[in-house]
Amino acid sequence: MNLPKAVEIREVGPRDGLQNEKIFIPTDLKVQWINLISETGVRHIEVSSFVSPKWIPALADHHEVFEQIARDEKITYAALVPNLKGVEGAIQQKVDEIALFISASEEHNQSNVNASINQSLQNLKAVAEAANREGISLRGYISTVFGSPFGDEVKLQTVKGIIDAYLAMGVSEISLGDTIGVADPVQVKAILSELLTQYDSDLFALHFHDTYGRALANIFAALELGITKYDSAIGGLGGCPYAPGASGNVSTNDLVNFLHRLGVQTNIDEEKLFTATRFLQQAINRQLDSKVYKVQSN
Amino acid sequence: MNLPKAVEIREVGPRDGLQNEKIFIPTDLKVQWINLISETGVRHIEVSSFVSPKWIPALADHHEVFEQIARDEKITYAALVPNLKGVEGAIQQKVDEIALFISASEEHNQSNVNASINQSLQNLKAVAEAANREGISLRGYISTVFGSPFGDEVKLQTVKGIIDAYLAMGVSEISLGDTIGVADPVQVKAILSELLTQYDSDLFALHFHDTYGRALANIFAALELGITKYDSAIGGLGGCPYAPGASGNVSTNDLVNFLHRLGVQTNIDEEKLFTATRFLQQAINRQLDSKVYKVQSN
Repeated sequence: MNLPKAVEIREVGPRDGLQNEKIFIPTDLKVQWINLISETGVRHIEVSSFVSPKWIPALADHHEVFEQIARDEKITYAALVPNLKGVEGAIQQKVDEIALFISASEEHNQSNVNASINQSLQNLKAVAEAANREGISLRGYISTVFGSPFGDEVKLQTVKGIIDAYLAMGVSEISLGDTIGVADPVQVKAILSELLTQYDSDLFALHFHDTYGRALANIFAALELGITKYDSAIGGLGGCPYAPGASGNVSTNDLVNFLHRLGVQTNIDEEKLFTATRFLQQAINRQLDSKVYKVQSN
Repeated sequence: MNLPKAVEIREVGPRDGLQNEKIFIPTDLKVQWINLISETGVRHIEVSSFVSPKWIPALADHHEVFEQIARDEKITYAALVPNLKGVEGAIQQKVDEIALFISASEEHNQSNVNASINQSLQNLKAVAEAANREGISLRGYISTVFGSPFGDEVKLQTVKGIIDAYLAMGVSEISLGDTIGVADPVQVKAILSELLTQYDSDLFALHFHDTYGRALANIFAALELGITKYDSAIGGLGGCPYAPGASGNVSTNDLVNFLHRLGVQTNIDEEKLFTATRFLQQAINRQLDSKVYKVQSN
């Protein structure tokens, strides 16, 4: 069994985590928290989303957050951008990377952004062109790759079509999302094995939610296939809009501890990660969903 | 990848779970709970421990529990027995199986039962002989197989020595325990691969604690090697005496849901498992550590 020597962690807590939280974390706390994350050694932070506050009130302060965080030049500070208005904001704030978002489930995409997959791809093309003009790198999310909350079948052919469309737009990294946390290691290996016959493993990041506690098992399956990029959220932030009370993203704490146990390097300092997590817990004032953090904080 | 078609789950919550709980669950609630577990389809329940109430007050009512539960003849009702006095009780209550217990770490065994591994094996031999005379089947736990809470090295040679001693005593099933939840899938595969060169896979059950969230990843590794017996506790009961606030045994709920997703049969009905879990939660009055239950109960 040859696991990768090192992997890159994408900390998505400030964006994918907080967008699912019911409360608004004050801007100054967000900024302090992101600054603590910058100190952990992680090289990629998804800071916020340039989306209308009407859609996601929890991230209404995206401009202020980008203005106030201390940026480390070794770190990529990314933002999710759904449309041309969002690109303007992202350009204004000099984000390092713009993340696009689409679902591989027609029903989920329709419910999420009120458009078909094809319409969404057209819209994202305009966003990508604007980003390309500014030389901003592009990351593309594909959600519900492993199952849809609406039960409609998600076809690998659809996923491949989106990958190809993303590549044509200049996207350099594609994050395959298990939005509802249903994936299992057999499925992960089957889907990845098929994709890796056509695409390079460096193209992909994996984005697992831990709804049913299987995220680390799935990540291990992906590690065995040579995938070296993983999204996670401090304290397992995130929840699931389709399963009230459910766990959220795989927790960065559990993931990093797991990887270090396996001898896989992350460049993340677990002590500093603990500091950033404790800060978040105080700011958010609820028990976080990380088993490692539970051990460390007792 | 050939996974087993079916596995056997050992529900250890009433014993390994409750022995780590701070509160005493009243006997009538324990009995009702165990009766609900019997209805789930699980074929093996570790009901209690015939141990001095001074050691484990939470299980002081082992006689009463065995007297009062409704026993289904298709189910093995087991009890942990540490010494000859315990065997007498177990015989009196007509338990179907006696579980023995020893640690593969000298320091842990010393701390746990105040005896060296060799002394413990001598003591257990007397217990086993008494059980054999009554025709009661024997199960042997080996704890700390994947790491010791005291940091002393656990040698596979020691584990093999205990396995051989157990076999000589007439033990028919051996449960390999990750007492402090540190195991990882690479280690699981390495240790099992080595053991399976000498012993049949049917001999072993695996007993993972989910302290760091890796239990399902470890179980998947064991499934890939053909292991078909797993210990788990409803609601992830258990905790860890060496890590206050930590998660306990892998939760039966998450394990069964995972196995069913993988197409591996368990004979357990998830609806009835939910009923038994909800009953436990009300009896124990705290948030249980199962991701699947969190989804189901919202």
